[in-house]
Amino acid sequence: MQKKGNKYGSHRVIEPKGVLTQAAYKIDNNMDEIYSNEILINVSALNIDSASFTQIAEACGHDNEKIGEMILSIVNERGKQQNPVTGSGGMFIGTVAQIGDDLKGKIDLKEGDKVASLVSLSMTPLKINKILAIHEDIDRVDVDAQAILFESGLYAKLPDDMSEELALAALDVAGAPAQTAKLVTEGSSVLILGGAGKSGMLCCYEAMKRCGLTGRVVALVICEEDALLLRRMRLCHEAIVCSATEPVEVLEKALAANGGLEYDVSICVVNVKNCEMSCILPVRDDGTVYFFSMATSFTRAALGAEGVGKDVNMIVGNGYTKGHAETTLSELRENPQLKAYFEAKYL
Amino acid sequence: MQKKGNKYGSHRVIEPKGVLTQAAYKIDNNMDEIYSNEILINVSALNIDSASFTQIAEACGHDNEKIGEMILSIVNERGKQQNPVTGSGGMFIGTVAQIGDDLKGKIDLKEGDKVASLVSLSMTPLKINKILAIHEDIDRVDVDAQAILFESGLYAKLPDDMSEELALAALDVAGAPAQTAKLVTEGSSVLILGGAGKSGMLCCYEAMKRCGLTGRVVALVICEEDALLLRRMRLCHEAIVCSATEPVEVLEKALAANGGLEYDVSICVVNVKNCEMSCILPVRDDGTVYFFSMATSFTRAALGAEGVGKDVNMIVGNGYTKGHAETTLSELRENPQLKAYFEAKYL
Repeated sequence: MQKKGNKYGSHRVIEPKGVLTQAAYKIDNNMDEIYSNEILINVSALNIDSASFTQIAEACGHDNEKIGEMILSIVNERGKQQNPVTGSGGMFIGTVAQIGDDLKGKIDLKEGDKVASLVSLSMTPLKINKILAIHEDIDRVDVDAQAILFESGLYAKLPDDMSEELALAALDVAGAPAQTAKLVTEGSSVLILGGAGKSGMLCCYEAMKRCGLTGRVVALVICEEDALLLRRMRLCHEAIVCSATEPVEVLEKALAANGGLEYDVSICVVNVKNCEMSCILPVRDDGTVYFFSMATSFTRAALGAEGVGKDVNMIVGNGYTKGHAETTLSELRENPQLKAYFEAKYL
Repeated sequence: MQKKGNKYGSHRVIEPKGVLTQAAYKIDNNMDEIYSNEILINVSALNIDSASFTQIAEACGHDNEKIGEMILSIVNERGKQQNPVTGSGGMFIGTVAQIGDDLKGKIDLKEGDKVASLVSLSMTPLKINKILAIHEDIDRVDVDAQAILFESGLYAKLPDDMSEELALAALDVAGAPAQTAKLVTEGSSVLILGGAGKSGMLCCYEAMKRCGLTGRVVALVICEEDALLLRRMRLCHEAIVCSATEPVEVLEKALAANGGLEYDVSICVVNVKNCEMSCILPVRDDGTVYFFSMATSFTRAALGAEGVGKDVNMIVGNGYTKGHAETTLSELRENPQLKAYFEAKYL
């Protein structure tokens, strides 16, 4: 009879006690017996977080053997692949080896299904038996390994109708477009800062689809080439060229592109610092500012809105919302041009 | 004829260009001619932000004369009281000296009204003629000075029915209780982390008022004494004692205090780091997590919710919402016990 673990995995925390597995220094990666609400995965590859892989590769002088040794030593020490310098992890791909008794028949997985993890390796119990290959150009490590998904853990079944690499590229940013789908309604005016990036294009597509004939989507991009691309792919009604770190210029150009009106929603997917005011100023009172960039500063957003007296609803981008993987993969199915662009650009 | 300035004050920015006055290094503090959408204030006192005042006082060996010189030199250099080390400002008290032509008759102020600024000194043009006194114990500096409020700038008329000090103590945290008033509705279950602090008590009072007979307010506090205090003052239905940095323990105790159910809303007013998971875990899917603490980390919140698969709406505490000053001052008028406690504790 299997023991029942905590829904969030705290039963695997070794030290310090009282925190969850992401904040823990060391977690239990024993794979011999799983808990009744865990899923055991045979892992074939790790997609190491880019910041983490870069740090490891540089520390090892880009020597593949040393990179492998460092990854092994991190996982042996901590029970998870969490880079001690950057704190970040990555995701894994593998096949379902065993489903705990309490989950069997209650989830949409069966043994042998191919899945990608949608929670970070920085909180996932992992045991590496052997490192098979290091692909430094795509931050990928082929392994013979096992990992645990907790009851609360997120995963996506890999689809049959697109390549594994394409699915992973899209799933990597699945939160933002799925949140866009919830925020944007018929008639919304939407400003998307960073519209030409991977996450930005998916958000633009979703916003165009949701805002209908009476809404308006304006994308802010960094160069004229990106503006032309978005217009040609019909991912926005208008694209404006401006640095998102220049709030006064952003405000002027953004209002001009919306008939002088403030926006209902702004979405920030620019991965540079100091974009908070550019996201806040163009939005109407009671409108919504959606920060999806990890470069967002909580205090600059909070004090910035107060400083200019903007009564806007500011949301912390949550990487998860129900159905986020399906929403994002569907976008690539619905728009062959977008799919082709992703295949050319991100694989 | 007065020139018209930018609503947000960008016409006063000297360097660097393209940013607003908070992000600027130096702004124009010329008080001889105001713009048509500015308000000129004769300032009688500065309430320096606590982090800023502590830094200045320590750098000056707690010598009042040196503290005064340092404040003068900052304001002469930058045109505003923004501590170059902490980046923070504070607020001011003064009387309305002149209202720009475009604002006259359109705002609820007249010359001679006594006001407190509700935007930070870190973005406010200020010219100090003379420092009159330094009160290190309450971070206050009496001055003969002038300041500018922009068209978008926030202020509160100081009320007649309570002391200036009491009004300031409450206005300092006006955003949190006013946002609580918007978030909590009849029947809501609410968890308030840090319920016994200044902001926490105001939030508790507002939540109790809004959740009605069918709702439930649970306050999390750091010691039994605070729990007794909140219960005795009827500021919550239940108070639990736990460190907000221990998410596993918080989750268990919080659920136990709510009949095993997850909460509709959590509000974080604990001013220490690493409380994000404690705010996220006890909330139901589609519920709301309201971060009001400036110690909140954007990335810990965003990645934390994803890591545990929580589909919650996470909001960045906006220090401003319509009517926030009036909401907060009303709380002290409605609850004499709370008013008496504030007078004893914060003056």
